[in-house]
Amino acid sequence: MAAYVAVIGASNATDWELATAEEVGRLLGEAGCVLVCGGLGGVMNAAARGCQTAGGASIGILPGDDRVDASRHLTVAVATGFGEARNVIVARSADAVIAVGGEFGTLSEIALALKMGKPVIGLGTWELGRDDLAKDPIVRAETADAAVTELRRLLPQIP
Amino acid sequence: MAAYVAVIGASNATDWELATAEEVGRLLGEAGCVLVCGGLGGVMNAAARGCQTAGGASIGILPGDDRVDASRHLTVAVATGFGEARNVIVARSADAVIAVGGEFGTLSEIALALKMGKPVIGLGTWELGRDDLAKDPIVRAETADAAVTELRRLLPQIP
Amino acid sequence: MAAYVAVIGASNATDWELATAEEVGRLLGEAGCVLVCGGLGGVMNAAARGCQTAGGASIGILPGDDRVDASRHLTVAVATGFGEARNVIVARSADAVIAVGGEFGTLSEIALALKMGKPVIGLGTWELGRDDLAKDPIVRAETADAAVTELRRLLPQIP
Amino acid sequence: MAAYVAVIGASNATDWELATAEEVGRLLGEAGCVLVCGGLGGVMNAAARGCQTAGGASIGILPGDDRVDASRHLTVAVATGFGEARNVIVARSADAVIAVGGEFGTLSEIALALKMGKPVIGLGTWELGRDDLAKDPIVRAETADAAVTELRRLLPQIP
Repeated sequence: MAAYVAVIGASNATDWELATAEEVGRLLGEAGCVLVCGGLGGVMNAAARGCQTAGGASIGILPGDDRVDASRHLTVAVATGFGEARNVIVARSADAVIAVGGEFGTLSEIALALKMGKPVIGLGTWELGRDDLAKDPIVRAETADAAVTELRRLLPQIP
Repeated sequence: MAAYVAVIGASNATDWELATAEEVGRLLGEAGCVLVCGGLGGVMNAAARGCQTAGGASIGILPGDDRVDASRHLTVAVATGFGEARNVIVARSADAVIAVGGEFGTLSEIALALKMGKPVIGLGTWELGRDDLAKDPIVRAETADAAVTELRRLLPQIP
Repeated sequence: MAAYVAVIGASNATDWELATAEEVGRLLGEAGCVLVCGGLGGVMNAAARGCQTAGGASIGILPGDDRVDASRHLTVAVATGFGEARNVIVARSADAVIAVGGEFGTLSEIALALKMGKPVIGLGTWELGRDDLAKDPIVRAETADAAVTELRRLLPQIP
Repeated sequence: MAAYVAVIGASNATDWELATAEEVGRLLGEAGCVLVCGGLGGVMNAAARGCQTAGGASIGILPGDDRVDASRHLTVAVATGFGEARNVIVARSADAVIAVGGEFGTLSEIALALKMGKPVIGLGTWELGRDDLAKDPIVRAETADAAVTELRRLLPQIP
């Protein structure tokens, strides 16, 4: 059974974030993973485009009531009408999460994935601090390649 | 853009319901529609199998926290963790709904789709009565073929 | 612990429905039940007003992002931002449901409550038909008084 | 109309967190605010107890399907069955959020509230870092008193 991997990040993203997300999407598609994302623009659209390039399958979980705003690079788009609560579904439906940059919405998805016990890999994303935190709960990577290498370590079912 | 059509019905289904759902799924796959369903067994699994036979794409929106119970015939499965509230997503993400038999969960999806103003086609499903109801809010069909003929009339974008 | 009872029905209601919902709300307040409703106008507002008259506690579960549209007669109002999925919470958070009239949204709440195995009492509400249905899944009542008498029978914990 | 203020934090809390949450709850009850919380133990229960002491109203938004695990100090408890997605409702239904300590679930509520544009006041809670972050998005306080003083500044409608 294919691994499901969420790529999360902002609609409003830097060039580096867009290029990185697209490369992550491409590598996930090549690895036979199903890409999960929030289905809108920016990092989400870039990841879907990369996945499409590699012939992979992708799902966009949309906050709104219809598919009008969905990235055109998705295999399928799910309109939830749940607003921010769609972030919970992005985290829940994935086996692991790769965060590329990101704003508060991305931070919520990181936190939800960690709460659910799922591995989170970060590329230029939020730093989290708390007095009693023994170690960084996010696995850090500097490049798309390194992120997917970490992913393969964390999800050995990826072929 | 492909039309999204939900096929809804019970896990615990009759032979006629299973055969009908599978045929509806096959016809939807042939028509290039994306099949949406609740992702579990019975009518949901039969519809996904039919769609797969025709080479179509299908999405299962699961109530639970993981994909363990998902039909193996789905293209992609979305674990929501939302319990019965996943029924809202099934209705919301579809452009039209085809109900095959069904129990109370199916009835909730019919009602939600009607509330959202989406066409509902029924095959051996619930009858709804209310004093001031001018006409049956469900378009009735007797066979899978007839249901998909009605669907094409209601969603003219299907090629 | 107090019993939680949902009173469900449409925003756009008849005089009889409004008067009945208000009387049901009053009787629930007198019985020490917590009233749950969808928090908007019509039947929801009338039930909240009746409950307030009796000094009872009521909760409105709102579909929107804020409390602007909430009935002023509620003890507390919860803005969910979940749209129609708030109907699931109305059904889930109640121990029993009393439906007064109602449109498709109400029908969805009836179906969800029945799916969850909760008693549903109906006053001038939907009739449900299915070939193999042994008996009406809704307990019928003609007056607010009769509905609350049925409720006490179904939820013996009400003092 | 009363202000709704969420007090968020972990089930598994330190003595300082519990004492602080109880004091925050008491001050909110005295100020006539409606307390919103996740409805379970630890910080949630302590805040509800403090609010009850002051005669204030409190709502617990529970993740599970019933009220069995609800704090006994709540005025009302809403069983959502939505799992982690109830965190979205905690953030959505509040006008401001006060975080006391907290783990990943609390972090998700902080992020969701910030995404929704709601003020977040932190007592011994998460530090958030990102390269381009101009300033701390969380208003910091050292004591319950200081937190409620900040709250009054941010929500001038509190009398």
